[in-house]
Amino acid sequence: MLYVIGLGLGDARDITVKGLEIIKRCELVYLESYTSILTCGKEEMEKLYGKEITVADRDFVEQEADIMLNNAETKEVAFLVVGDPFSATTHTDLILRAKERGIKFQIIHNASIMNAVGSCGLQLYHYGETISIPFWTDSWKPDSFYEKIYANRQHGLHTLCLLDIKVKEPTLESMTKKKKEYMPPKFMSVSEAADQLLQIVEKKKSEGIQEIAFDENSIFVGLARIGHESQKIIACSLAEMKNFDLGPPLHSLVLPANNLHELEKDYLQQFSEKPL
Amino acid sequence: MLYVIGLGLGDARDITVKGLEIIKRCELVYLESYTSILTCGKEEMEKLYGKEITVADRDFVEQEADIMLNNAETKEVAFLVVGDPFSATTHTDLILRAKERGIKFQIIHNASIMNAVGSCGLQLYHYGETISIPFWTDSWKPDSFYEKIYANRQHGLHTLCLLDIKVKEPTLESMTKKKKEYMPPKFMSVSEAADQLLQIVEKKKSEGIQEIAFDENSIFVGLARIGHESQKIIACSLAEMKNFDLGPPLHSLVLPANNLHELEKDYLQQFSEKPL
Repeated sequence: MLYVIGLGLGDARDITVKGLEIIKRCELVYLESYTSILTCGKEEMEKLYGKEITVADRDFVEQEADIMLNNAETKEVAFLVVGDPFSATTHTDLILRAKERGIKFQIIHNASIMNAVGSCGLQLYHYGETISIPFWTDSWKPDSFYEKIYANRQHGLHTLCLLDIKVKEPTLESMTKKKKEYMPPKFMSVSEAADQLLQIVEKKKSEGIQEIAFDENSIFVGLARIGHESQKIIACSLAEMKNFDLGPPLHSLVLPANNLHELEKDYLQQFSEKPL
Repeated sequence: MLYVIGLGLGDARDITVKGLEIIKRCELVYLESYTSILTCGKEEMEKLYGKEITVADRDFVEQEADIMLNNAETKEVAFLVVGDPFSATTHTDLILRAKERGIKFQIIHNASIMNAVGSCGLQLYHYGETISIPFWTDSWKPDSFYEKIYANRQHGLHTLCLLDIKVKEPTLESMTKKKKEYMPPKFMSVSEAADQLLQIVEKKKSEGIQEIAFDENSIFVGLARIGHESQKIIACSLAEMKNFDLGPPLHSLVLPANNLHELEKDYLQQFSEKPL
């Protein structure tokens, strides 16, 4: 039996009572650690659960997941996922593989950024398509997500921007070697995201495009560590966001619709130093 | 101090460990009961929490919430919400009122249909604007949500359709009386929603509109009691959905995008009797 258990967003105690009960009776407990992170360490979780946890990193999910599924054929196995189990494609794929092999599974839901972004007061049913902003390199600066932001703005919708995470990425030098070496983990900040968005604005302007989805004066909402006690939300212009430090990861960015409902505006105001 | 605590979607044990700890030390516990329902009764919750629960219905939120906020000025008060605290506008409003009165508050997140809809395998970041389908009457058949579905389809996005809930609605006869009488609670089923959507298709056809967002053959996904053990998901045509009984509430409906990713299609297939 495979239990895929959402951990929520904050610390170890954001697991549900049901999820905790299940972990306590499982023989094997794995923690997925490459699509997201909790703000607490593995040790804190092991203490609460009374179980040893095996960290499942990128290599694991891509290569060793079959071993976990083999175990789930005869044992009670828990696979812990930050946020909700369906927040990442890799988990959907894992569940499908379990199903194809005839392994029974149960999903335990929890909060994820996809619904906890409601914390900034913008109503969830007024969001359009969610976009992801990847880390740019000197030679690779993809901006196809811009068109999605543009479409959302056209329809009077908010846009949630998920910011890139690089965990356990092999170094370029070790790619061809047998023993991989890994880069330190990287989490995009709202400041870095704002910098890239400003570059897109400049590019559009230099191309003579008149109607741009947003510019340096557009109000964005920066969110950090949502669901954790140290959570921070700021509403300011894109230019200001570039110079703003929201502290440790994870960060997300929201571009509100042009026209906000009265309640949305009132709620958002508390996160801004200037009148919105 | 006011704690607004998400209960998740299934039963009493879907509360988080943190949420439960907070309830156990609160002096007063209210349960919001008119924007959604849990699949368990108040008694089951009271047993787990070891606390008496006051049910806060529509009248409460509209009229008596101030009394709760008065209490929160001096006492530890928990306000329990099915799903996530930011899933309904009324809760955002309540939090804002607490803040304006200088009452400290803490939000405890949980799963809501807005992220748990991921259960059907359609990726959350491919959803467009969420729509709400209201109960029609003989003389009132609003269909403005159709344009939003149309826009989502145009952009290759899925649409989550939230289905209407009528809890503690006064009867027409008692509206002017001092002592209100209430209609039995009503929860829209996927079958009722499909029936209304089919009527919209007929109307568009009779108006000679060529390009309709969906028709009776379009595949819809019906979801019932997501997050609960008795959860059911079905993928079938709109015409078939009209005759399908998914059992007790709550129900939701999803209209998938025209073009599905391979993994989305593979995952959805398990809920369909026919090849998608």
